[in-house]
Amino acid sequence: MTVLILTNDEDVTADMVVVHLNASGVPVVRLDPADLITGAALSGEYVHGTFRGHLWSAGRLVGMDGLRSVWVRRPGAPATRVTEPSAWLTEESSQALYGMLRSSGARWMNHPDAARRARHKPWQLRLAQGCGLPVPATLITTFPQAARDFAERFPDLVVKPVSGAHPQEPPRAVPTSRVAPDADFTAVAFGPTLLQRRIAKRADIRLTAVGERLLAARKPTASDADPDEVDVRFAADRTPWRCADVPPRVAEGVRRYLREAELAYGAFDFVEDADGTWWFLECNQSGQFGFVEADTGQPIALTIAEWLARPAAADERRRVNGTTTTVQ
Amino acid sequence: MTVLILTNDEDVTADMVVVHLNASGVPVVRLDPADLITGAALSGEYVHGTFRGHLWSAGRLVGMDGLRSVWVRRPGAPATRVTEPSAWLTEESSQALYGMLRSSGARWMNHPDAARRARHKPWQLRLAQGCGLPVPATLITTFPQAARDFAERFPDLVVKPVSGAHPQEPPRAVPTSRVAPDADFTAVAFGPTLLQRRIAKRADIRLTAVGERLLAARKPTASDADPDEVDVRFAADRTPWRCADVPPRVAEGVRRYLREAELAYGAFDFVEDADGTWWFLECNQSGQFGFVEADTGQPIALTIAEWLARPAAADERRRVNGTTTTVQ
Repeated sequence: MTVLILTNDEDVTADMVVVHLNASGVPVVRLDPADLITGAALSGEYVHGTFRGHLWSAGRLVGMDGLRSVWVRRPGAPATRVTEPSAWLTEESSQALYGMLRSSGARWMNHPDAARRARHKPWQLRLAQGCGLPVPATLITTFPQAARDFAERFPDLVVKPVSGAHPQEPPRAVPTSRVAPDADFTAVAFGPTLLQRRIAKRADIRLTAVGERLLAARKPTASDADPDEVDVRFAADRTPWRCADVPPRVAEGVRRYLREAELAYGAFDFVEDADGTWWFLECNQSGQFGFVEADTGQPIALTIAEWLARPAAADERRRVNGTTTTVQ
Repeated sequence: MTVLILTNDEDVTADMVVVHLNASGVPVVRLDPADLITGAALSGEYVHGTFRGHLWSAGRLVGMDGLRSVWVRRPGAPATRVTEPSAWLTEESSQALYGMLRSSGARWMNHPDAARRARHKPWQLRLAQGCGLPVPATLITTFPQAARDFAERFPDLVVKPVSGAHPQEPPRAVPTSRVAPDADFTAVAFGPTLLQRRIAKRADIRLTAVGERLLAARKPTASDADPDEVDVRFAADRTPWRCADVPPRVAEGVRRYLREAELAYGAFDFVEDADGTWWFLECNQSGQFGFVEADTGQPIALTIAEWLARPAAADERRRVNGTTTTVQ
């Protein structure tokens, strides 16, 4: 049974996982959907009520029923490396590839439907609330007056994008920034705006969840840190990440979040306040982990490899996107 | 409790349903996501573990917790009617709107995740097989040799797109066409190709499913019909659609299909062969129904209105995309 990794050639983080899979002798096929038609091929046949499908990539042929798990890392858009790419060819190739994989019976990290849903920030905030994770007071609005009212109640505010990343190629993260309570909120009418109470933090927390395993890392905020530097991704501070224990209530909330969201992998960002409370900021279902592993030595790549290599339990194989089905 | 209809202004089919909802006194808010920012607005607040959200459209304000159901008909891309549309604004607005609606607790026709999954033709064919619906022998491939072998076994073939519709604006349906068994299949290497055994049909069947209710219509094939005219959507024949009974085994298969696919609405296309067998071609989760209702008098719009108007059952309200959750 083979592990299929959907990602691009430059993905060195995937290489870290492949090393562990190779070491344990688990067959791996790596495929960038962008290579479809030119460097990769597929075929599937539906005859007499049965299905037989195959994928071919980098000289390896694998049957759809021989897939143990699919890791969706950083796949390129399908069939974009041909001489004359087109939206039509990409759509046809995407439907053919993902349409077949969806009925393969393999375990997904993460399933495309769960991944897509998990990107919705408003949904994340509501789910975190429902799972008992503390969420800073947040407003998402196109009403300038709602923004003004909110700023009056919560004068210490940050603003951040609703969607997380600017959809350019490659996508660019937009930093979270402080906003003054007397700011001119007129522009809110020109696009949905996310305002959030700023948490005076004494540390940033990155919690990487792989299946049932939770690996937390903590980066203390320097005592002389500029309070305007709210976004740890863009901070000048080079304090390394260090391993941290996960408080039991947070662990419970995070596991519940993953279960409800049907995610096998999630990178959670929290901030820790002066009381030691971890405030949920977001869960990135495809968040990077290389930098945390490098700083902390946490075995994230190994844990992912172990999850991908695990034989599918009979009951798990029947589970597709939360529903039991017979089309495996 | 309000019914929210996401569609564009020109959608006359939606008008047919609105008439029934108005007649029964059910509050309706119609919103085209394209109008966001300019003609529609939204706001949602997450404070102290709770969520309160509102939508405003065409002078009506509705609370997210006051939504009974959401009908996703033909919504425009969010915020595209502004003076300077951008991919960024559309993405932010899409996340804000659908992200909030996803945790509203309303019943969906159809849920965006289920809708997206249901569009995958290879997945449809496999699901139909699993539900006991007869599927014509089909090959989806990028291997010319696989196409040649398939044509040898099934010489009477049609070719159709994998994805169903050309992704232009507006999307254009690509007709299903016959292909000669001695055709040159070299071009298969340049894009995934769907080949299917042609069913010698004596009728086309359109089965419209709304919740548990199945409404079938049949259009007999003229005895002098050109056998090259395989696609009923493009046929010159103006024979009207007539009501038809649904064979019990088909009804069972279709209901199972809808359940597994988590769809509240589906337009199934079958062809009936000389033995009376209904062969599954596809299920369009957003298929048109106005032309069938006009020909047959079947109360499809009324049935949709009744489904949308139905108060949410307690157990259904807790069900979001196949998983029970507490974030309602």
